[in-house]
Amino acid sequence: MVESRLTGPVRIVGAGLLGTSVALGLRSRGIEVILDDASPTHVAIAADLGAGRPAAPGDAPQLVVVAVPPDVTARVVAAELEAYPDAIVTDVASVKAGILAELVAQGADVSRYIGSHPLAGRERGGPLSARADLFVGRPWVVAAHDAISYQRAGAIDDLILDLGATLVEMTPEEHDRGVALISHVPQVVSSVMARRFIDAPNAALGLAGQGVRDVTRIAASDPDLWVQILGANAEPVHDILVAVRDDLDRFIEALEAPQAPGARRRVAEELAAGNTGVSRLPGKHGTDKRFTTVIVMVDDRAGELARLLAEIGEIGVNLEDLRLEHSPGRQVGLAEVQVVPEAAERLSEELAARGWRIAG
Amino acid sequence: MVESRLTGPVRIVGAGLLGTSVALGLRSRGIEVILDDASPTHVAIAADLGAGRPAAPGDAPQLVVVAVPPDVTARVVAAELEAYPDAIVTDVASVKAGILAELVAQGADVSRYIGSHPLAGRERGGPLSARADLFVGRPWVVAAHDAISYQRAGAIDDLILDLGATLVEMTPEEHDRGVALISHVPQVVSSVMARRFIDAPNAALGLAGQGVRDVTRIAASDPDLWVQILGANAEPVHDILVAVRDDLDRFIEALEAPQAPGARRRVAEELAAGNTGVSRLPGKHGTDKRFTTVIVMVDDRAGELARLLAEIGEIGVNLEDLRLEHSPGRQVGLAEVQVVPEAAERLSEELAARGWRIAG
Repeated sequence: MVESRLTGPVRIVGAGLLGTSVALGLRSRGIEVILDDASPTHVAIAADLGAGRPAAPGDAPQLVVVAVPPDVTARVVAAELEAYPDAIVTDVASVKAGILAELVAQGADVSRYIGSHPLAGRERGGPLSARADLFVGRPWVVAAHDAISYQRAGAIDDLILDLGATLVEMTPEEHDRGVALISHVPQVVSSVMARRFIDAPNAALGLAGQGVRDVTRIAASDPDLWVQILGANAEPVHDILVAVRDDLDRFIEALEAPQAPGARRRVAEELAAGNTGVSRLPGKHGTDKRFTTVIVMVDDRAGELARLLAEIGEIGVNLEDLRLEHSPGRQVGLAEVQVVPEAAERLSEELAARGWRIAG
Repeated sequence: MVESRLTGPVRIVGAGLLGTSVALGLRSRGIEVILDDASPTHVAIAADLGAGRPAAPGDAPQLVVVAVPPDVTARVVAAELEAYPDAIVTDVASVKAGILAELVAQGADVSRYIGSHPLAGRERGGPLSARADLFVGRPWVVAAHDAISYQRAGAIDDLILDLGATLVEMTPEEHDRGVALISHVPQVVSSVMARRFIDAPNAALGLAGQGVRDVTRIAASDPDLWVQILGANAEPVHDILVAVRDDLDRFIEALEAPQAPGARRRVAEELAAGNTGVSRLPGKHGTDKRFTTVIVMVDDRAGELARLLAEIGEIGVNLEDLRLEHSPGRQVGLAEVQVVPEAAERLSEELAARGWRIAG
């Protein structure tokens, strides 16, 4: 365990999913954590989980992490800045520009405040869903602004690194436009799609497969939370929604006369644009464009996959990702081996030379 | 193995993903399968996989399954009805009313035709992706019509039951409205959302989490296939898209003046309607309920995954499926190991005893 540069104590305001997860992560690195929440039950649960101790008079936190709902975040941050004049304060709300503007308007001491946003969450909220590794490998945006010194902002960087997250620096405005695109608009799109199921016949809904389930999964999100988020980021969300609506209108127009000249081409272009767009999402599973997939047929016998991986190691190619498709009723599985494009051809050749069957 | 009521042979026209999967499933029940495809390579691959034998003069199929792209389905079905005057013919295209109408208009003998549609598929097409259990537990719609007798339609029912699918009877029109709602419109919605990523900054896309990935996963679907599907089901898709567009307009209007009286309430109502809608989707049958996932943390070092697999073999647990999640900037990957439920606990314990970190 590398020693943390945070000396602590760290005060967490809001012992919900995010706050308690931050607390658990810091505790696992030996840092003193102080818990506070409007709900004494949340504090008690979080303390029972080993996330820290309840707040007490005379606490002198080095760092305060405000993890409360977005529409009260600015108010709570302002109160914390005032209550702990030696502390650096951050928050984890999912919209950033409005909070900073509100603090500045109130005359709060923003030389000790820097907002942040961990891109992590779970379907279930509350301290019981918290986990020390919630942020491991996830992006955590620090919303840089000019009124806080580099040195003071460093405490937030230490927090993020301690929790295993990846620090991403953006201005509050860049952040808010970014999350409008990759989080807030997808939420709206998922919700309006799911709304169509309200009056649908059961038989039709019974045909639902993985595609529609994926598209509408986040339609189950908490409306109370999302009203706050969408309201706080209304302008960027609005602008992207208008563009989505205009694209939908093009589909609608083409489908009004699907046999008309050009209608098929227009539909194809819209669908192809969707292909291009989704291919730009970085790094997950089979879709990572940085890597090339080599598909190897693997006999359904114990040890075959281990042998394949050992031989890939011998060949000296670094495995970036792997997926095994194995289906009952077939005598072979398909191992999808992802490697950097430069290595794919050599890997295919050397594996084939060793007797492996390459399927693609 | 319960004996099939199909006597066979069954002729499969189109040895792609669906056709070859039907063939593999029937072969595993001992039924004779005849393969045909415009591509001799597809026939050869499917035959190599054990899916049946190539077509030959004098074949006398009991049942013909047409599994070709939607826009040539009616033509191929008509040709099969004529070529095999004693056979019952079905197809597996994803739109049904138009095909029946086209056959009737052509004067084809629809007393031997009944369309069907298995709600199953995979990201990759082609015979190499086929699997005998592709249809197990999935809905398979039989598009009932009055011109075929109950007795003749029974051959299709037997086919569906043999493949382990769940038979759903609907009229062609009910089917087409149903799939517009739970498949075709979600495809369009996913595509228009993903299109917005084309011009997005990399930093914004780097914030993408599971939610947006799920919403836009099917935006990667094949435009050629989807142009055919959307064109063949234009009217129901159009009508639902208009309703989605109207809901989007309500969001857009509310976000134009998010502080206006009633704006928050309207946004909350739209989101709550999405909750209600998605809750109507019945219990998921897409994921493989037969297996339990054990998540193991694997250090990002050469040979670690091979060592894990070798030790799983030593423990004596059979690996059903494997997926590795590996993200740049992280020192560990997560190996999702799927095993039969009875083995999961023992595997977790024995791996932990050998020093592996179990993440779930």
